[in-house]
Amino acid sequence: MGKIIAEVTVVPLGTASTSLSVYVAEVEKVLREFPGLKSLLTPMSTILEGELAEVLTAVQAMHEAPFRMGALRVSTTLRIDDRRDREITMEGKLAAVKRKM
Amino acid sequence: MGKIIAEVTVVPLGTASTSLSVYVAEVEKVLREFPGLKSLLTPMSTILEGELAEVLTAVQAMHEAPFRMGALRVSTTLRIDDRRDREITMEGKLAAVKRKM
Amino acid sequence: MGKIIAEVTVVPLGTASTSLSVYVAEVEKVLREFPGLKSLLTPMSTILEGELAEVLTAVQAMHEAPFRMGALRVSTTLRIDDRRDREITMEGKLAAVKRKM
Amino acid sequence: MGKIIAEVTVVPLGTASTSLSVYVAEVEKVLREFPGLKSLLTPMSTILEGELAEVLTAVQAMHEAPFRMGALRVSTTLRIDDRRDREITMEGKLAAVKRKM
Repeated sequence: MGKIIAEVTVVPLGTASTSLSVYVAEVEKVLREFPGLKSLLTPMSTILEGELAEVLTAVQAMHEAPFRMGALRVSTTLRIDDRRDREITMEGKLAAVKRKM
Repeated sequence: MGKIIAEVTVVPLGTASTSLSVYVAEVEKVLREFPGLKSLLTPMSTILEGELAEVLTAVQAMHEAPFRMGALRVSTTLRIDDRRDREITMEGKLAAVKRKM
Repeated sequence: MGKIIAEVTVVPLGTASTSLSVYVAEVEKVLREFPGLKSLLTPMSTILEGELAEVLTAVQAMHEAPFRMGALRVSTTLRIDDRRDREITMEGKLAAVKRKM
Repeated sequence: MGKIIAEVTVVPLGTASTSLSVYVAEVEKVLREFPGLKSLLTPMSTILEGELAEVLTAVQAMHEAPFRMGALRVSTTLRIDDRRDREITMEGKLAAVKRKM
């Protein structure tokens, strides 16, 4: 099975502060335990590239991070792009769009 | 660990037809293998209620359904609502909103 | 131009409480100002059916509701399903899937 | 009213090909008509920074692009992050997370 690209956003709800970067930083640190995944932090999400099973394991670990910091409710969003006619990579997708512009 | 509520949408890309209901039906049928999950089909998604680990296993199975039917690219979206200060259920969430309206 | 179906979720961030139903109720009430839209409240979102321009106006009004209640940060998610080869309705989409199951 | 950050993904459904980059390129080109918006193309979305009203106008124009190219069904996803206690920018959000890692 090939690699997929996924986009993940983990947001704690009902924290007293509107600033969430301290939580996002902790969620990002979880990815250090997943050296098989390539990751890219954007202003709205984390993009992951790797095997689907490993991505799902990582998402579950990322989802736990805010709870460990005291959050009582977490909203996690995941979007998976899985193409099986040929390999997709983060770089390949970006390059294909830029070539056509 | 308590139950979570999740919303799942599985969409095949690059199918010849704009009609996707035959794929959605197949994705729904996968849920018969997960009797521990409560599910609700809406016009835009499937909502699931159950343990997080079982929901993730179900989502992976739902994501495979269009590939088995010949699709070559699938986009799957998942949003998890996980609240640990008290139990959440699909019915409870709806009832709480309606009470306040 | 025909009708589209859209799914909307409006979530305040950094509220002190994990309970958000009081905000969701206020967001729902905004829809009373849009009698041209059909709406369906689900445990994870509000589904709207109507003209794209009116849906976007409603989403902007829904997005403002938590701010009026004192929220300082709001995350709003919208997914639009727009099909132009034939009309789509909430009921039609559900019926098509159920027929095929 | 201050600036918001939004994430947009426009996907045509029922195109014969699994390759969508030609559509994504066309969607990106639409942004040239919106010089007031800052934009960032990621492997999974386009991130926009600007006034909410202008972002919504741009999203509507982006959503039309695949139809002009012959697509008959388009799925557009938008997520808005709107913070009113202080200004948010794409750069500021990323910098805040990186500082905390």
